Amino acid sequence: MKQPLRFGLIGHKFMGKAHSQALHDVSFFFEARFEPVRAVLCGLEDDLPEAAARYGWQRWTHSWREVVADPEIDVVVIATPGNTHCEIAIAAAEAGRHVICEKPLALDAEQAARMCKAVERAGVKHLVNFNYRRVPAVQLARQLIEQGRLGEIYYFRGTYWQDWPLDPAFPFVWRFDKAIAGAGSMADKGSHLVDLALYLVGDIVEVAATTEIFVRERPAPEGAARRVTTDDAAAFLARFRSGAIGLFGTSRMSAGHKNALGFEVNGSRGSLIFDLERLNELQVYFVGDDRAARGFRTIMVTEPVHRYVDRWWPPGHVLGWEHTFIHQYYEFLHALETDTLPSPNFHDGLKVQRVLDAVEQAVAEKRWIGVPEGT
Amino acid sequence: MKQPLRFGLIGHKFMGKAHSQALHDVSFFFEARFEPVRAVLCGLEDDLPEAAARYGWQRWTHSWREVVADPEIDVVVIATPGNTHCEIAIAAAEAGRHVICEKPLALDAEQAARMCKAVERAGVKHLVNFNYRRVPAVQLARQLIEQGRLGEIYYFRGTYWQDWPLDPAFPFVWRFDKAIAGAGSMADKGSHLVDLALYLVGDIVEVAATTEIFVRERPAPEGAARRVTTDDAAAFLARFRSGAIGLFGTSRMSAGHKNALGFEVNGSRGSLIFDLERLNELQVYFVGDDRAARGFRTIMVTEPVHRYVDRWWPPGHVLGWEHTFIHQYYEFLHALETDTLPSPNFHDGLKVQRVLDAVEQAVAEKRWIGVPEGT
Amino acid sequence: MKQPLRFGLIGHKFMGKAHSQALHDVSFFFEARFEPVRAVLCGLEDDLPEAAARYGWQRWTHSWREVVADPEIDVVVIATPGNTHCEIAIAAAEAGRHVICEKPLALDAEQAARMCKAVERAGVKHLVNFNYRRVPAVQLARQLIEQGRLGEIYYFRGTYWQDWPLDPAFPFVWRFDKAIAGAGSMADKGSHLVDLALYLVGDIVEVAATTEIFVRERPAPEGAARRVTTDDAAAFLARFRSGAIGLFGTSRMSAGHKNALGFEVNGSRGSLIFDLERLNELQVYFVGDDRAARGFRTIMVTEPVHRYVDRWWPPGHVLGWEHTFIHQYYEFLHALETDTLPSPNFHDGLKVQRVLDAVEQAVAEKRWIGVPEGT
Amino acid sequence: MKQPLRFGLIGHKFMGKAHSQALHDVSFFFEARFEPVRAVLCGLEDDLPEAAARYGWQRWTHSWREVVADPEIDVVVIATPGNTHCEIAIAAAEAGRHVICEKPLALDAEQAARMCKAVERAGVKHLVNFNYRRVPAVQLARQLIEQGRLGEIYYFRGTYWQDWPLDPAFPFVWRFDKAIAGAGSMADKGSHLVDLALYLVGDIVEVAATTEIFVRERPAPEGAARRVTTDDAAAFLARFRSGAIGLFGTSRMSAGHKNALGFEVNGSRGSLIFDLERLNELQVYFVGDDRAARGFRTIMVTEPVHRYVDRWWPPGHVLGWEHTFIHQYYEFLHALETDTLPSPNFHDGLKVQRVLDAVEQAVAEKRWIGVPEGT
Repeated sequence: MKQPLRFGLIGHKFMGKAHSQALHDVSFFFEARFEPVRAVLCGLEDDLPEAAARYGWQRWTHSWREVVADPEIDVVVIATPGNTHCEIAIAAAEAGRHVICEKPLALDAEQAARMCKAVERAGVKHLVNFNYRRVPAVQLARQLIEQGRLGEIYYFRGTYWQDWPLDPAFPFVWRFDKAIAGAGSMADKGSHLVDLALYLVGDIVEVAATTEIFVRERPAPEGAARRVTTDDAAAFLARFRSGAIGLFGTSRMSAGHKNALGFEVNGSRGSLIFDLERLNELQVYFVGDDRAARGFRTIMVTEPVHRYVDRWWPPGHVLGWEHTFIHQYYEFLHALETDTLPSPNFHDGLKVQRVLDAVEQAVAEKRWIGVPEGT
Repeated sequence: MKQPLRFGLIGHKFMGKAHSQALHDVSFFFEARFEPVRAVLCGLEDDLPEAAARYGWQRWTHSWREVVADPEIDVVVIATPGNTHCEIAIAAAEAGRHVICEKPLALDAEQAARMCKAVERAGVKHLVNFNYRRVPAVQLARQLIEQGRLGEIYYFRGTYWQDWPLDPAFPFVWRFDKAIAGAGSMADKGSHLVDLALYLVGDIVEVAATTEIFVRERPAPEGAARRVTTDDAAAFLARFRSGAIGLFGTSRMSAGHKNALGFEVNGSRGSLIFDLERLNELQVYFVGDDRAARGFRTIMVTEPVHRYVDRWWPPGHVLGWEHTFIHQYYEFLHALETDTLPSPNFHDGLKVQRVLDAVEQAVAEKRWIGVPEGT
Repeated sequence: MKQPLRFGLIGHKFMGKAHSQALHDVSFFFEARFEPVRAVLCGLEDDLPEAAARYGWQRWTHSWREVVADPEIDVVVIATPGNTHCEIAIAAAEAGRHVICEKPLALDAEQAARMCKAVERAGVKHLVNFNYRRVPAVQLARQLIEQGRLGEIYYFRGTYWQDWPLDPAFPFVWRFDKAIAGAGSMADKGSHLVDLALYLVGDIVEVAATTEIFVRERPAPEGAARRVTTDDAAAFLARFRSGAIGLFGTSRMSAGHKNALGFEVNGSRGSLIFDLERLNELQVYFVGDDRAARGFRTIMVTEPVHRYVDRWWPPGHVLGWEHTFIHQYYEFLHALETDTLPSPNFHDGLKVQRVLDAVEQAVAEKRWIGVPEGT
Repeated sequence: MKQPLRFGLIGHKFMGKAHSQALHDVSFFFEARFEPVRAVLCGLEDDLPEAAARYGWQRWTHSWREVVADPEIDVVVIATPGNTHCEIAIAAAEAGRHVICEKPLALDAEQAARMCKAVERAGVKHLVNFNYRRVPAVQLARQLIEQGRLGEIYYFRGTYWQDWPLDPAFPFVWRFDKAIAGAGSMADKGSHLVDLALYLVGDIVEVAATTEIFVRERPAPEGAARRVTTDDAAAFLARFRSGAIGLFGTSRMSAGHKNALGFEVNGSRGSLIFDLERLNELQVYFVGDDRAARGFRTIMVTEPVHRYVDRWWPPGHVLGWEHTFIHQYYEFLHALETDTLPSPNFHDGLKVQRVLDAVEQAVAEKRWIGVPEGT
């Protein structure tokens, strides 16, 4: 018999919808002892009741404190702007709820560290939703590296391009406000890249960086223009503990790119290339292939041998973006079931935050900045 | 208030799972007056109860006749091998159920014509699940052609490659048996291509063709080898009523291709190319672009202006294979709501069948065969 | 000491220029005992003297008979429209010249057979310029097939798209005139495809086909419109002696394609894909690769192990279209030096012609037509 | 009547061969008043006489001083390792020869500045062979940017990957020796990227960087291992005067990449992407395209409207790597004919050197370094 697990979700817009569907679908595809129950949806805007109905939530509330305090809630999911993560997560942990938090985990490493302490002290499970780890092709990349099939890793290149606010007439939204969002493309997009780099190549020890705001004012709904205080684009260099070099670029102003997270890893025995807009594919090159017929293989990562895929469809029946959320929830349920720590968790989120803080400092001081160690 | 619509689904394997999820998810994403209820799941094997539970069906039965006869059922979905479609569909129609049927609609045009008559006589809604019409990129292709942006259509090339039974040791399954499957790659894959050709370019009036079986015997579960009686691969030519030429290839023995439905359309003012393994993209070339900067555009068909996409995620957050089923169900619900004929319906299925019958005859007689007209 | 080999080239337009450069460059890159001398260039138009000067020819003449009769000429190269090949080639052979002839070899198999007899009787060397055999990637394709790395061949798909006369205002030129060109895209483009199919998969025994003219009249220089009598597009099916299926499409009216010869070969152990617009690459899939990391390899065919490449540049320094002509001349010089038959020679040209004749008959009779055997 | 222009080429290996062919072919394709004469080839190794014969040089010498001093020589071409450029170029200029020099121009900006002064003082023509400017697709990129079709430029990403010495057993050659080569991938590959960035986006004012040597010792011909003193890989950030951000990566240890120079430019109205391994293509995205059909266009840059292409072949008949050298020589001859300054010239070479010097200093000092201005 399945055991119900009651979720409270804070945030009902894009991320709220994605989390809702993952809760709606995870049991359809994946085996788990726990059956997620969509208990309460929390949000601020007037369309909350409609969203709650459509996305299958039992009730709704405008108060996140009510969600956190509700003794019936087992798991709190935080899908709100970055400046609220810390307070909600700590409150949820202190109330004894497991916590799933959107990325980046916090506005800075100090917040993230406090969040880590809170969940540790409370003994609850915690997960930060770096969902792109859960693309089957990324799992394959990780597996190939772990198996040593790429040899010693020399170089990591990660780029994340979007163009949603390319038009200078695109209005001011919270992502342009440093007080709410913490940073711009560097954090919003860069946190995914840094997480993948840490996941695939290991610790980053030093960074240098630059950022820029290309459109400095945006029309505000209230009529006047508002000043943009988060970066439109960033570029940074990293040194990994292993000796590998890292090259990172992010931008929300790169015309033609919609959700173009891409990375390449070069090692002594091979290379691999990933592009999120073609997320069912991984390109891999093996030095050991016979000389006349060596080349990047475009692997359709849709075989039963690939992680998660056996739960879906036959080979070549491709998955989409939302499946990463479903996989993430499966991992969370599985961790609960086996009483293990979900991955990536708040400690992973903190590590990313430390790198991003160093990036920010490197921009300000125009020099290489070391990334502090610690867990 | 939403009105429940009770479904009975016959078939609980791959197709059964896909239909179940579509029924599970359609209301999450799309507005409709009707709310699908997964009432009864029908299948033959022992794992039926487990499937029914996992896929959210209220009950199960081994008898399709029971499903069809159940007065509480509004819609019967047929997701069984081809040799059973005709009998079940006619029985369902006669019992007053709306009918959704997997493709190809029947074993031949004679069966398909009888099915058409039955649903017409009964006045029920009917749909044949050529789900690839429901890829947003295919919708865009259709729209560009309808708007005349490709001009007069000259050439249609459609190919569908898979490689699942490439290994001669792959065991005998029902798809190798002509009595059950009707035909091999020519019908199973070719029916999709023909449907898309008819949808995009119009009626086919004549065909020439060849087919081949490369592995003539397959190991059977019972130990002995069984003779394969359906084609491994086919190739055919077509003439469209418009004067356009059609070139078609299908194979289940094309190494490296998993679900590689592809087509290209050339017209007097432009061309377009589609590949199901990259189903979020459509390549389009416009003759009218400025001479120095003309080239095939790789369009990410993930913008709100693209059909169905506004109900999903922001640009660049790609969809997968299963979404075509959800879109198909949305179209069905919408047709019920507006009391219009769903598309593609049994008449479309019959048209495809007439082409496939002509292909089969063309193979046998080694000459061009005309495709009979009619609706 | 190198031995001069005196060439007479008939035709000074596009093909004349390409042959001239090949003669100009072949010794720069390839070792051979013979040193080509550009002795005489022949053409009809007024710009001949200028072309002769620019392309380094010692003299020019308007009379091909003079070229053929000149005892100082060792090799006659025929780069004129198809209706002149037969007469010139036979005259050249009878005068004791070696003969290189552009493709397709003749207007029909009857002419081609006479040409074969003439060169055989005269004991001269002969070559038909199916230059795409000389792409390093095509050589690799052939080598992989010969080594059995693709296993038994099941399917050959060949397509050749261009769009140069897409505009109905494009004027009437000799390629639109059946009396001069023999056929349209079917022969001009199709002959390349058929040659490659024969080269890679072996004899074709039967064909079915269709052709179409989309723009039936073209403006003529003299003012009035002229009727187009060669096909704009063709599609045909073939059966190979081996049991493999062939699918062929050609068109000069496929918007967006400039010189898009492409083919794919599927076998029991692998597949390969080639695209002339990316001629430095070959895509290859091996069934034997490990299951988790199988995929089409995009091989850069620019390694020293690849045929011809060691004479050019380091890996990744790509070759272009013209290099195929230089390779073809190297093969010719090498055959002379070793007193072997060049490849592809007139017998290969005749084989292609027999297939094209059958295609033409198949169009006319609307049925499958056998291809006669013989050498 | 054409006027002979007598060349002396110093260096007879890979670069020597490429320059020789360009001199051999340039008049075949391009109109110019000057006719290049391959007068004298200079090199150190024993195979020099053979190379001189094969590549069509009238004579050879082991002494570059003899070449420079020869009053019959009009143009000296320097295709030797970087540590010799300065001395030879200055001697050539002082002797009144025009000078063509391989890239990077010198070991550092100080040398490059002296070379600039020498050619200016002598009033001779000078050119630095950043040949990738001469790819038709790069010309198109420049033209689109100049026409404002990409709007204001925000971001330049340039990467250059090779893998020739990936194997640790690859022997020590001069490129691993800082005293001879100046730097490794950062200069050898990076100089091309920086030149293209300056050409397309304008001045770079500041840089930050890191480099690494992954294989620290290489087997030497003499038996013992030698220490590698040039970087295997580099990564650097740049700020352009315009406010744009630059992201650069270079490596000679990136498995699977042979000559993979790539760049992307993002602007307020569009983007473009180039890849040297597919050098006939340019990908371009225009924000102004209609919303439903926007996408990166893959332009085949083989139309007569594209720079240089009208002198070659019809559309779709692709060019290769060597053509960039031929175009470069055409530009040089044209500059002589019109008495204008060739492009890119020593001043361009100096600008690149200043950026590379700043990169080197940035690596050493671990901070952002300004690039000095000046011409």
